[in-house]
Amino acid sequence: MNKKPAPRNALYAQSGGVTAVINASALGVIEACRLHRDRIGHLYAGRDGIVGALTEDLIDISREDPAAIRALRHTPGGSFGSARYKLKDLERDLPKYKRLIDVFRAHDIGYFFYNGGNDSMDTALKLSQLGEQLGHPVACIGIPKTVDNDLPVTDCCPGFGSVAKYVAVSTLEASLDVASMARTSTKVFILEVMGRHAGWIAAAGGLAARKAGDAPHIILFPEIAFDRERFLARVRETVEQKGFCVIVASEGARDGEGKFLSDMGTRDAFGHVQLGGVAPTLAAMIKDAHGYKYHWALADYLQRSARHIASRVDVEQAYAVGRAAVELALAGKNAVMPVIVRKSSKPYRWNIGSVSIAAVANREKMLPRNYITADGFGITAACRRYLEPLIGGEDYPPFKGGIPVYAKLSNARVRRKLQPFVI
Amino acid sequence: MNKKPAPRNALYAQSGGVTAVINASALGVIEACRLHRDRIGHLYAGRDGIVGALTEDLIDISREDPAAIRALRHTPGGSFGSARYKLKDLERDLPKYKRLIDVFRAHDIGYFFYNGGNDSMDTALKLSQLGEQLGHPVACIGIPKTVDNDLPVTDCCPGFGSVAKYVAVSTLEASLDVASMARTSTKVFILEVMGRHAGWIAAAGGLAARKAGDAPHIILFPEIAFDRERFLARVRETVEQKGFCVIVASEGARDGEGKFLSDMGTRDAFGHVQLGGVAPTLAAMIKDAHGYKYHWALADYLQRSARHIASRVDVEQAYAVGRAAVELALAGKNAVMPVIVRKSSKPYRWNIGSVSIAAVANREKMLPRNYITADGFGITAACRRYLEPLIGGEDYPPFKGGIPVYAKLSNARVRRKLQPFVI
Repeated sequence: MNKKPAPRNALYAQSGGVTAVINASALGVIEACRLHRDRIGHLYAGRDGIVGALTEDLIDISREDPAAIRALRHTPGGSFGSARYKLKDLERDLPKYKRLIDVFRAHDIGYFFYNGGNDSMDTALKLSQLGEQLGHPVACIGIPKTVDNDLPVTDCCPGFGSVAKYVAVSTLEASLDVASMARTSTKVFILEVMGRHAGWIAAAGGLAARKAGDAPHIILFPEIAFDRERFLARVRETVEQKGFCVIVASEGARDGEGKFLSDMGTRDAFGHVQLGGVAPTLAAMIKDAHGYKYHWALADYLQRSARHIASRVDVEQAYAVGRAAVELALAGKNAVMPVIVRKSSKPYRWNIGSVSIAAVANREKMLPRNYITADGFGITAACRRYLEPLIGGEDYPPFKGGIPVYAKLSNARVRRKLQPFVI
Repeated sequence: MNKKPAPRNALYAQSGGVTAVINASALGVIEACRLHRDRIGHLYAGRDGIVGALTEDLIDISREDPAAIRALRHTPGGSFGSARYKLKDLERDLPKYKRLIDVFRAHDIGYFFYNGGNDSMDTALKLSQLGEQLGHPVACIGIPKTVDNDLPVTDCCPGFGSVAKYVAVSTLEASLDVASMARTSTKVFILEVMGRHAGWIAAAGGLAARKAGDAPHIILFPEIAFDRERFLARVRETVEQKGFCVIVASEGARDGEGKFLSDMGTRDAFGHVQLGGVAPTLAAMIKDAHGYKYHWALADYLQRSARHIASRVDVEQAYAVGRAAVELALAGKNAVMPVIVRKSSKPYRWNIGSVSIAAVANREKMLPRNYITADGFGITAACRRYLEPLIGGEDYPPFKGGIPVYAKLSNARVRRKLQPFVI
């Protein structure tokens, strides 16, 4: 009679910029692990992601209050801590990769779930290869996460739908404000949004328009070279026709030589070039050329942490990829990542597939040219068809005293077994 | 037998910066007028507020789709148009005041409902006086509106509760984001909020903290002179103790000489001093002194138009003051404004009173010193007791295709009877 293999432990880690729904993926992992106690023993999390794994600073998720765990579904940020910490290639960072395998061995970790973007997929791939070589095989499964929506293969990335919804709703609301006041006050409003390389988030601003001619009137994408004269002409035309002009500008907007607009001028009191300076740069340009009164907003972290206006579809997909990661591991897969597969746009139907991590690591997916109107300032019907389902549905957190009740984890530490490791 | 007086018409106008709930006040006016068709004939609105009244550009509200009218309750911005247009004193702007009375006479307007802040109350007061003198008496009733919460007498101002909720929720969410990442990334986050003169909106950021020590760690109020060294020391202490520091800064923050922080340095590519520059100024100051990685957000119009996260209490109060304005007029009152009277904080109970417009015109209510902690960087329990009820309850708009369905009025024009008037 075949004896069942002894259960092995699992490690979950969050990586890179957090999102409104990354904790929903964590919950998916946690709940799926619980369903398979015969195969997966303890589930640990790295405190501050891979940094916790390197320093053997592991969190024992099983010691957490079950209500707090359930609340991960509606809690933004990374409740176990995340990190901007990229491991380099195996030659240069071999001691770190080996340390990770040492930690895995010490805690009998046989499953590693890494919730991040393309950099993280690269790390997961290398760990999978090295574990095998060093005699401690680990099923390394990526879980997609990025507000930028720039991972290839997957139809979309959990985290994006919610930032897209935030940007669409905010653009709509601010547009109503500006329209009300334009006759005697602000004529130009600029919302600067994230997306250093890809214009997916900026494109989502276009969903604020119900019909042609509605705000936003101009979207600036990183994929389209910024042309000052064409831009200024369009602003003037819009103000003359509509009375006001609403612009959604990607932080990654750049000119034909690839120079970021945000580097084009604004300096603070100390002479430093200002970060996040696309909106003020555009505002000053418009004021200088046309004299219009302007306002601008920089949503920054508000956009990626706005769980109160999360997309229900996004929450469901984030949860689903977390669960699927565990199921893939238990099905014997390694170095794979669950992906979202679109079956149809109207009605929106999707399911979960998987892809080899090697196919997504270190690759970025840009907004295709046919998603951008010929003039470069708007989104096409094809783009709208792609984007609209991703912001579908609301999924409000519970509130108390006027503000959301978000999870607060105790994050109890697992006892250390190894010598300290300085990173 | 006494013959009932013939019904007279009414004019409603929106004034100044719009809010998430000013249209709920409009709905209160509209529904109250409908209940009294025997006394109030037509209800008109000024297109773009007082500008429409001056130019005889009146909107016939009765020709609007009833569903669109009902949707005013959940639509941000000013659906009839608002204006930043302040009439000066009677001597200097007499032709304009007289023109307004001419328009009122031509359209038999006997009731004027002016929905605005302290400037608008001043205009309403003067019109009430002048109408009487010129033999066309008009009941001029103010309806309080301002996100700044700086009108005296009334316990709070419709519009404020919703921006307060937005700022509290956004501060909470961004704090979770920063906390997740601080070990390897951003250590300081600054949210710049509105409130040029009074710190009410900045204070609302303090509601994000459930207990002492929670973010936000520093609030900068216009009422407290900014002290660079004390501020920088507090930032360092906070980062050393908590690992990160969240700051809510009023756009009106200023130093001991009254110089705005926003004027202290940031200049754009053209050498213009940047507006809305408190957050980048602080960020650069911190980077220079401590070297911490920072992010900052400028919510600008997003905060005052965020109907999707409006306070239910605020919506109800905005509606109530609109209705009360009509009832006051019909009770024979003139030059008054309905106010919100707090009966108790826990549980929160309020009703509507009224005040002479003369008592509120051109006056501002600052945050009292006992609402600010002794160190000047936070809010006291008394402040929290005052603020918390105002952000109570959620009141979500309906959504379609992932974004809110907001009212779109046709705003049909009333036929003109007078000669054009150039403003």
